[in-house]
Amino acid sequence: MKAQSVFGFHAVGARLKHAADSIQTIYVSTHRHDARMRDLLARAEGAGVKVVPADDHRLDGLASGGGHQGVVALCQEVAAPVHLEDVLSAVTPQTLLLLLDGVTDPRNLGACLRTAAAAGAQAVVVPRDRSATMTEVASKAAAGAAETLPLLAVTNLARAMDQIKEAGVWIAGATGAASATVFDLDLRGPLAWALGAEGSGLRRLTRERCDWLARIPMQGTVESLNVSVATGVCLFETIRQRGRAAVPENR
Amino acid sequence: MKAQSVFGFHAVGARLKHAADSIQTIYVSTHRHDARMRDLLARAEGAGVKVVPADDHRLDGLASGGGHQGVVALCQEVAAPVHLEDVLSAVTPQTLLLLLDGVTDPRNLGACLRTAAAAGAQAVVVPRDRSATMTEVASKAAAGAAETLPLLAVTNLARAMDQIKEAGVWIAGATGAASATVFDLDLRGPLAWALGAEGSGLRRLTRERCDWLARIPMQGTVESLNVSVATGVCLFETIRQRGRAAVPENR
Repeated sequence: MKAQSVFGFHAVGARLKHAADSIQTIYVSTHRHDARMRDLLARAEGAGVKVVPADDHRLDGLASGGGHQGVVALCQEVAAPVHLEDVLSAVTPQTLLLLLDGVTDPRNLGACLRTAAAAGAQAVVVPRDRSATMTEVASKAAAGAAETLPLLAVTNLARAMDQIKEAGVWIAGATGAASATVFDLDLRGPLAWALGAEGSGLRRLTRERCDWLARIPMQGTVESLNVSVATGVCLFETIRQRGRAAVPENR
Repeated sequence: MKAQSVFGFHAVGARLKHAADSIQTIYVSTHRHDARMRDLLARAEGAGVKVVPADDHRLDGLASGGGHQGVVALCQEVAAPVHLEDVLSAVTPQTLLLLLDGVTDPRNLGACLRTAAAAGAQAVVVPRDRSATMTEVASKAAAGAAETLPLLAVTNLARAMDQIKEAGVWIAGATGAASATVFDLDLRGPLAWALGAEGSGLRRLTRERCDWLARIPMQGTVESLNVSVATGVCLFETIRQRGRAAVPENR
């Protein structure tokens, strides 16, 4: 099985929590003895995972130069989780998906995964040829979400959107050009949010397949939000509405 | 006056828009001729700003190794904008402030500024000894917001909170330990949101000074949101409520 390095406290902590068996060794800085490190070491011991002290030079190498905060875990890759079909065969009123059209910055991809996981989404769908991949930088930004939330790379995003709609999931697209705001939409029931890259936004083919388009109501001089922040606003507005009332009869 | 380098399309574009007079020279990559660069060059010409071609090595040096995307502006520092007293002397029902207690990562600080500017906040307040400063990395993450939104570093955050409340501004604190969610609060009227660093959260002295505490309702296995995403959820929920109805009589 292929090995992978997972680094930083968030990511290693999440791997310990959700897939400790996949960890071969955790390497920790000989310089860090604070509460956060002690907590991690206690959790590693509890999970029966081998811990090895390492100097900064070695840690830098293991993390390929990424910001490791003094902790790097060498792991087996967790098996790639599911196909889109698996997700769509289990649609419920709580189904929540995130489609990212052209997010090519790995840090942004990771941050979106983290946000989607926090909102309880079941999967993040990206076009294979127009997306960052789950590199170690992305994994660190995901802060553990990469271990629990499926990232589904599809060959053709437009076709995937057709499948999603056929499965009874509505698609809302976020675009600054829309007249409605995200707060004007009824977001209850099975839903997928489509967000595009900063700057270019949703491609025309993606936009045309959305059931609704909406914008985040910008108040200031800044032209756009970071895509992970926009994801947070859209997904948690959905969570807010779902907590408020049942799905209406006309949906 | 002290010189500073501003880099990346967002940040340089915002400086051109809001304070073109402060730009001494814009250095641009000899390799980039795409639409985004052409647009920037046209705006620089329109503003009468000198543009000088530069190779990547020179740009890297000017940006101190930051991700410059082929554009670096050498600028005079824009004069430090306001004091907290100035903001508090002009409180209206639309007043919106962001207090960041212990955000020490410059990229996160910049991302929070960008989000706060997008939500129309008037200022971001941080404790001087417990915050990242507006470095070039922070400025790039702020994507232009650093040029328009005052970042107010105060000596004593608790005392600043007392001043804020005395001026008639309510303070809501975001903390995972609260029983109410941000969606349960009435956020209309003059408001300041207090958010803490990921991991440690709000300090006790900060928490105790909040009028209300609330949590973002996390749905998944991820333990926390990035602080800029949490800021987005809190501030745009405020914007949503403000768009819905007038401030009630009992507030």
